[in-house]
Parts: sequence; structure tokens; C-alpha cells
Amino acid sequence: MTATEVLGELHEVGRAASGGYRRFAWTPDDAALREWFTARAESLGLDVVRDRAGNLWAWWGDPDVDGPGVVTGSHLDSVPDGGAYDGPLGVVSSLLAVEALQRNGFTPSRPIGVACFGDEEGARFGIACAGSRLLTGALDADRARGLLDGEGTTMAEAMTTAGLDPRHVGRDDETLRRVGTFVELHVEQGRGLVHHHAPVGVGSAIWPHGRWRLDLAGRADHAGTTALADRVDPVLDLARAVLTARSAAARHDALATIGKVLVLPNGVNAIPSSVTAWVDARGADEPRVRAVLADLADAGLDPVEESWTPRTPFDADLTAGLARLLGDVPVLETGAGHDAGVLALAGVPTTMLFVRNPSGVSHSPTEHAEAADCDAGVDALRTVLEHLAGPR
Amino acid sequence: MTATEVLGELHEVGRAASGGYRRFAWTPDDAALREWFTARAESLGLDVVRDRAGNLWAWWGDPDVDGPGVVTGSHLDSVPDGGAYDGPLGVVSSLLAVEALQRNGFTPSRPIGVACFGDEEGARFGIACAGSRLLTGALDADRARGLLDGEGTTMAEAMTTAGLDPRHVGRDDETLRRVGTFVELHVEQGRGLVHHHAPVGVGSAIWPHGRWRLDLAGRADHAGTTALADRVDPVLDLARAVLTARSAAARHDALATIGKVLVLPNGVNAIPSSVTAWVDARGADEPRVRAVLADLADAGLDPVEESWTPRTPFDADLTAGLARLLGDVPVLETGAGHDAGVLALAGVPTTMLFVRNPSGVSHSPTEHAEAADCDAGVDALRTVLEHLAGPR
Repeated sequence: MTATEVLGELHEVGRAASGGYRRFAWTPDDAALREWFTARAESLGLDVVRDRAGNLWAWWGDPDVDGPGVVTGSHLDSVPDGGAYDGPLGVVSSLLAVEALQRNGFTPSRPIGVACFGDEEGARFGIACAGSRLLTGALDADRARGLLDGEGTTMAEAMTTAGLDPRHVGRDDETLRRVGTFVELHVEQGRGLVHHHAPVGVGSAIWPHGRWRLDLAGRADHAGTTALADRVDPVLDLARAVLTARSAAARHDALATIGKVLVLPNGVNAIPSSVTAWVDARGADEPRVRAVLADLADAGLDPVEESWTPRTPFDADLTAGLARLLGDVPVLETGAGHDAGVLALAGVPTTMLFVRNPSGVSHSPTEHAEAADCDAGVDALRTVLEHLAGPR
Repeated sequence: MTATEVLGELHEVGRAASGGYRRFAWTPDDAALREWFTARAESLGLDVVRDRAGNLWAWWGDPDVDGPGVVTGSHLDSVPDGGAYDGPLGVVSSLLAVEALQRNGFTPSRPIGVACFGDEEGARFGIACAGSRLLTGALDADRARGLLDGEGTTMAEAMTTAGLDPRHVGRDDETLRRVGTFVELHVEQGRGLVHHHAPVGVGSAIWPHGRWRLDLAGRADHAGTTALADRVDPVLDLARAVLTARSAAARHDALATIGKVLVLPNGVNAIPSSVTAWVDARGADEPRVRAVLADLADAGLDPVEESWTPRTPFDADLTAGLARLLGDVPVLETGAGHDAGVLALAGVPTTMLFVRNPSGVSHSPTEHAEAADCDAGVDALRTVLEHLAGPR
């Protein structure tokens, strides 16, 4: 089967009216995806185990006996109205690469693992890469257990409903010790490979990125009777913030986005009492990102830092070696966070493979990768596993 | 008792954490306010009847026997986190004016009525002046019955829960015939009387006003990986719309407000797929308002008209006569809609009295009127009723 065909098995799971997917952590759709993964992996003779954070690991060979393995994989959850490829392409390609190795009679010299991380998008509880961060301890277990979804359900309650005991969540050294190397395959979320005319590339680093909150205060007032001069209208500040963030990003060769906005009381005839807006800013290095924030501050805005992740370089030798192995494919940085970044920060030798995305669109129902490129990704991943788990 | 003291009797009803009020139609708080009104009116010997739309009418004298009466009154519901005066000041002042007339031994030559309109703010079902519009037929009964609140309850269900039979809702000629003249007292929602150094004024017209929807289309995409040049970000269009609306309002001496904004999917790291924003625009005459909309269209925006209310003049002779009667008090136009405007459009000779608002702030917990100004309002209303219901 091709990667596109196997992805088709998940076509109806968590499908939204938009044509995209709403596959959120610890829901029945999430359980269906996990069951599908487990059945597929077991059909290849892999042993599927769940770690303390609920991530799934399918092993070919026993890392507790034969030493740390070569692990690949990704995630199956999605953002709201996300696409079919972000996450699942990596999981599907991993299983197909293992299947191809088995078909060729390959005998690994060290264990090979396929990881299926939980809650990578953080769509339900607001923390991205929650599964891998719990695994490495980067996300505090108590904080995670208390996170609330939009309906007031805690992550602990959601885990319990899904059959995971939240008391056991926390840094899982036993699981981490089994991971000798991690390589995540992912659909590209930009058009770098389009510009390189290449179906597959290797990742070298995740850009530094952060999110900042803008608390814009206004004075609630009647829209029909308050003279313009008497208004304190925070929507005007929002407009300034949006335009300042955009022009600052362009000037400093960075990215800045205001994608989430809360207006209170949000009434048609009410001058808002407050607007809260969030700025997502990223760039190839920290000074560019900080320059965007400085421009916002210069404009009289007061961004409050809610999170900051420094630049995460992948293992340089591994990255360069795989790029050579695959025929000098392009080496790319990415602005998106991934479980691979979390493992790299925890000291696991890590890199990524990217598969070309014709439009660059991601986190959208229109996200797409050509079937031939997906197959090229499977083939590249098979080559990588053969190399890393080949004769010593 | 003073008006401020009587308002104090309602201090705890529907009080929100903000210190303001959340008094919405057909809720238990609404029922408590109606019970308070009924008890207060009956203590003055008035006959309280409910019309087919659920508005309450307290009569001194019998309009079915003695002919159409002089009616005053206002409403007791509020916007979300509204103030204590918008609505209740008119109801309280009406009851106190009647009480003062009775205390003085006044004998009305025609009936005097105090109206307590339901659902004036439209906070729950989205239609302002729903009670008076149902009464006059300006709001279609079938449409009203099917309106949904934020929890999916229809207005018909809400009315039934509150003990009103929604099948009887509709234009109520029997009730309308009883209203010979209508005078609504209301806290001013701007600072016109501050500038005039006057505690009380008379209203001459409600400005033409409308609301327009802006559907701003974007393309959902990942905030961390999509180059600025590849984005279709509708938040940028929102920013342009906000600034264009504001500068257009200033240029054309009108008011324009964007107070309600919906962003989809509203995720911190997601370039939105769409933004919907509503423009509230008003002005002293229609050309000014239309000029604001034309500026938005010139900026490439495409406002969709959701509602439009033409200029509503109050009865010119009545307005001028009352201004003279009260000692040549200021005559003001207002940008806010009122039940008085609905009755005026239905052909009832109508005007309004306004009470000074020091800050001009309204629809806010900080809305305020000085106790002495409230008492001046009661006294003015008593004078008006004495005049209009005095010896023929």
C-alpha cells in the first residue's frame, strides 16, 4: 500500500464539516486513532507499549535487552479543522518503512521503534507537545493534570476517561532510555522544498519562538451615544498592534501573527471594556524575534511573555549524515514546534525528514502532499532506518 | 423616598461580579424585577396589566373607559454588565412622579399609565426593544418566537418558562389604543447636558442607525511556517476596517464602532481562516452614516447591512411644549435606540426626558447620575404629567 492509501484508512476519523479534522487528545476519536495504530503495528509483529504519559511505542526488537533503539514516528491528533497530513503522514510513513524493511528481509542490528505521541497539537488543553513534554519532564505533571479544556474538564479527568491513570504521569526515564536516536518525518509546513524542487529534505533546527499576550484596556460605553473624543476604545489599539506586528516582522525578517483575539463584552453596540490579543512570533534567531517585540513596545504596547522556546538545533552530525545518505537533499530549518524538538532538548540525538507541500498550507483542510512525494518520504525513511539500524 | 433610594431596592437583583448588572429577558432576575414593579405600582393603587408581548402597564384611571392616557415608563432589563440607571431610572422616576401627584392631591383628567417594557436591550436574543416592537408589530411574532439565546433556548421557550404564552404574542392594538401620549425618562448616555450645565433635557429625535457585517476571508495556515508573502491573513483586514471606520466617522461627524469580532479558529498559532466584524454606525442624518459606509467600501471592504433604522423624530409640538414647560431646558437628539422610538414610529405622540450623566458613560458598571439630578428628573416628569393630564 502507498502512504496515501494508508492515510485513507483514517479518512473518516474525527472528520469535521469543513472537510478537515478535529482530533483532540483523550477523546473517542483519539482512542479510535490509537486502536488503529496498535492494530497496524501488531500486524507487523511489533510490541506496542504505552508510556506513563500515554504515548504509544511499537517496537521491533526489545530495547530493554538489546539497548536503545532507532525511533521514528509522529502524532495522530490535529488542530481544529486541521489537515490529513500534519502528524499522520509521519506515523503512516514509519509503519510503511518498517513494513518495507521486513519485506526486504532486513535484520536490524538494534531495535527499531515507531512512536505515536499524544496531544502534540495541544488543541484541547492549550499546551503543544504535551505528550512528549510530559515524557521528558519539560511539562510539569501537576500543571498538566490541572489544565482545563474549553468545557472545564481537566486533563486528569480526560486521561481517566480514556483509561490512563493520571497519577502515573511524569518524566519517564525508563522510556527515554530506550530511545537512542529519533527521526520524525513530517509534511513540510512551508514551501522550502518547493523552491528546492525536492520531494524530501532533512531538518536542522527549530526556530526560537514564543507567545505574548497584549492586554488592551478600554472603557465600556454605548456605541450610539459616546462622542469619538470621549472614547477609550481598545479595538483601536488592537488595530495598531496588528499592523505594528506585521510591519515589524517584515522589517526584521521574522514571523509575527495575531491569531487569537478576545473582545469583551463583544456586543455590536458596545465599545469594548477590554481586548486581549496574543502575538505568536518566531524567527531564525532570537535577536530577530526580540526586535519584533521591541517594535511593539516602542508603539506603546506592553507584550506579556507567556512562553518562550529557544532555538532547538537538531544533532548536527546526524542531520548532515542523513542529508548525504539521501543524495544531498536540502537541509531546512522550521518555524514549527515538534515532538522531535522536545526530544532534542532532552538530549536525544534527533533530526527530522520533511516531505514537500505544494502550497505550503498547513493547519487547514486544504493541507496536501502529492502521493509520489509521500512515497518518496517512506522510501527516504526506510533508507534512514536501514542505515541507522544496519550492521554496526 | 428619592429616586436613588428606590433604585437601591434593586441593588442586588441580577448583580454581576463586575459590579454591573446582567438582567436578561425572561430569566428569574427578570421575574424578580417584574414582581418588584407590580408590588410598587399596586401600593400606589395602580392596576397592573400585562400585554400580549409581556410588557407591564400600571394604570391610574381606566383607559378603556376614560380614553387614551398619558403614559410614561421605561425598562428594567440591562445589557451584560450594564449600569444601574439605563432603564430603571425611568421606571422609578415614573412611579415617584405618580406618587408625588397623588401626595399633592392631583386629580388626572385622563388616565396616567406607567409602562415597564420587556427585553429593551435585547441582550439575550439579539433584538433590541423586543417588547415594544412585538407590541407594535415592528418585530414579527414568528421570527421572535424562533430567536435563539446563547444556549440554544428559543424566545418562545423562555417566555413559556416565565409564564407567558408565546402563541398570543403579536401586534396588540388593544394596548396601543390606550396610549395617547408617551414620555420616556432616561439617563443620558452622553454628555450633552453636562455641556449645557442642565440636570434635565428633552429629546427631539433618535439618530438614524444601523449595523453592518464585514465578512473577512483568510486562508487557515500555520503561524510558525508560513512566509508573510504567502499569507492571506484576515486580521490585517480587520485592522484596516477598524482604522477606516474610525477616521471615516471623524471625517463625516458621525459615530462608528466595531465592538463585536469573531475570529476563526481563534488559535494562537493559527492564521485565521476568517474574521467577522460588525460595524455600528450612527449620525445626525442618513447622509453622514452612508458616507461612513462608503468610505469602508472605498477601502475595499464589503459591509453587509444587517439592520437599518431611519431617523425617528419625536412629536415636534410635544417636545417644544415640554421644553418650554420645564423652563427652556435643552433639547437633545440621541444616538441610542429606545422604546420611545418604537412607539413614535407606530404613530404614538412621543418624546423623552433625559437626566444628566456626569461622565456620559453608559452600558457599564460605572454609569452614574447624581442623586440631585435624579430628583430633578422626577420633578420634571411630575410637572409633565400634571400638564398633560391636567384640566382640559
